[in-house]
Amino acid sequence: MMSIKWNGDSVKILDQRRLPLEEAYNTYTNYYDVASSIRDMEIRGAPAIGIAAAMGIALAAKSMIGGRAEEFREKMNSVFTLFAGTRPTAVNLFWAINRMRGIIKDRSDVPGMVDLLEKEAIKMYDEDIDINRRIGKNGSRFLNDGDVVMTHCNAGALATAGYGTALGVIRAAVEEGKKIEVYACETRPYLQGARLTAWELLQDNIPVTLITDSMSGYFMKSGVIKKVIVGADRIAANGDTANKIGTYTHSVLAKNHRIPFYIAAPLSTLDADTPSGDSIPIEERSMDEVVYIGSYQIAPEGISVRNPAFDVTPAANITAIITEAGVIENPGRDGISAVLKKK
Amino acid sequence: MMSIKWNGDSVKILDQRRLPLEEAYNTYTNYYDVASSIRDMEIRGAPAIGIAAAMGIALAAKSMIGGRAEEFREKMNSVFTLFAGTRPTAVNLFWAINRMRGIIKDRSDVPGMVDLLEKEAIKMYDEDIDINRRIGKNGSRFLNDGDVVMTHCNAGALATAGYGTALGVIRAAVEEGKKIEVYACETRPYLQGARLTAWELLQDNIPVTLITDSMSGYFMKSGVIKKVIVGADRIAANGDTANKIGTYTHSVLAKNHRIPFYIAAPLSTLDADTPSGDSIPIEERSMDEVVYIGSYQIAPEGISVRNPAFDVTPAANITAIITEAGVIENPGRDGISAVLKKK
Repeated sequence: MMSIKWNGDSVKILDQRRLPLEEAYNTYTNYYDVASSIRDMEIRGAPAIGIAAAMGIALAAKSMIGGRAEEFREKMNSVFTLFAGTRPTAVNLFWAINRMRGIIKDRSDVPGMVDLLEKEAIKMYDEDIDINRRIGKNGSRFLNDGDVVMTHCNAGALATAGYGTALGVIRAAVEEGKKIEVYACETRPYLQGARLTAWELLQDNIPVTLITDSMSGYFMKSGVIKKVIVGADRIAANGDTANKIGTYTHSVLAKNHRIPFYIAAPLSTLDADTPSGDSIPIEERSMDEVVYIGSYQIAPEGISVRNPAFDVTPAANITAIITEAGVIENPGRDGISAVLKKK
Repeated sequence: MMSIKWNGDSVKILDQRRLPLEEAYNTYTNYYDVASSIRDMEIRGAPAIGIAAAMGIALAAKSMIGGRAEEFREKMNSVFTLFAGTRPTAVNLFWAINRMRGIIKDRSDVPGMVDLLEKEAIKMYDEDIDINRRIGKNGSRFLNDGDVVMTHCNAGALATAGYGTALGVIRAAVEEGKKIEVYACETRPYLQGARLTAWELLQDNIPVTLITDSMSGYFMKSGVIKKVIVGADRIAANGDTANKIGTYTHSVLAKNHRIPFYIAAPLSTLDADTPSGDSIPIEERSMDEVVYIGSYQIAPEGISVRNPAFDVTPAANITAIITEAGVIENPGRDGISAVLKKK
């Protein structure tokens, strides 16, 4: 399975909105369409949207190769702004944009800058798979043979360049010969668990059982769920972690039932500039995502809806944050800054 | 709005599966169809299914008026068994069946028994609305002017003969002039919150906001939700309460955030014969309820699914149980048995 691919003069993106019923790809030659693809959640997952933004920026650069350096830089600035406005919560997006911005900072030849931007986007893609394999290796020791592991949303191959973060840890444990069963929360409103995690794990023959988000307490209390592992969209300097709406709810339940709760994320998700979870902006999305499932309307006309796309899990509810540079147990300001120094 | 009605020789039932898009009624002259209507959740809600079973039993009795007393009693026993098998968790069903069985216990004239059964079904319907108004009156003092009150599933007029239990308490507070806003959890998989509670409250002009079940933690942590009130399908002798799947999850979150958590239910939901929540049978329903929303398939072919329809909230998570005979604060064995003596 492949979430995104750079084709030299276009970006090929798996339309995740059509999964699991259809495996359809769109090929974009215009950077503006790549930005829409991120905003409309055709591609999603913090690491994947960082890579998609980088590829969109490379595509934009290629279309602007003809002008003067100053003009090019000015146009690229508005491209950076466009991509920065697609999704506000995941910090990987801003990390990717800043990295692309930094790579051309001291250059003035347009073709050279275009070439650098393309190479950087490709590098970020290649690095991401490697990072995920290292996250997997660092985290697999937390999963025991026979464990039932609950996850929320999709922090898998589809949310990254490949292999996945939370699902990467599960894949690594399975590769080590451990028998792992996954309980996938469906993840309303956008159903990434039902549509993406279930599909992705079925393809890899990893046993997966679908539950509604509201069942997590039931299966923790009854002793079925042994561990929880999820991804992250932004980790503040104190360890507070923004992730898909519902994650906080699961974290409170896990703590209440003394079930270990792990975050798996690349260092690019750690945001030293955000002191705590209170400063993380929470994206509120369209009410249609709650009211319509496919074309099926589940609520009456005229209903008010709230649709925050993320919530913040306090560091105190997190057993460990698993990164490619090491594991931060009982995460807090010191552990986060120590691992960030390895960046 | 009307969930069920006795028509003398038929039972008219609002098809709740078609709400909120369509307000359609089915009229059944055969008791067997009434049993199917309960099993298939055309009518649902603990008090309402008790009444539906009583009306179905009255319908069966009328169709068997011609035979001898012994034969009639034997046939009615299999009718009782049929209705007892429709839904296992809500105790009101068994309460209603036992009440119907008891009313003909010492009788031997068939037409007299048929008449008694019809009158008892009508009486149960009339009593239920009165009971709900008394529950509302007993519980409204817990809701303050300006409160945002979260509820799960539908414990409203649609789940009863009218007025509702949890929504009855909200209605009573509104009738007393308090400004109350309701946050309705959509209640996956069957979406009773989105389809029924939202519809019912919109009809009454009570402000209602729809959220997904996974958002309860977010809105408790952010201070929006001030109280939680839900219905019940069975309350054990120690106060442990079975209710729609997800209720337990909300109760843990409410306790964690020091938000009062109320159960509103008639005495017929209290089951002195069930010592604790561990003995309450939990119905596991078809995986299709999770995988299909309307005709829209949300998960890949071949996926495993768990679908427990209820969970048990321990008495320790419940601030008070509100009944028609009074309120049981910090519910436990003594409080439950004291209120049951008033039955």
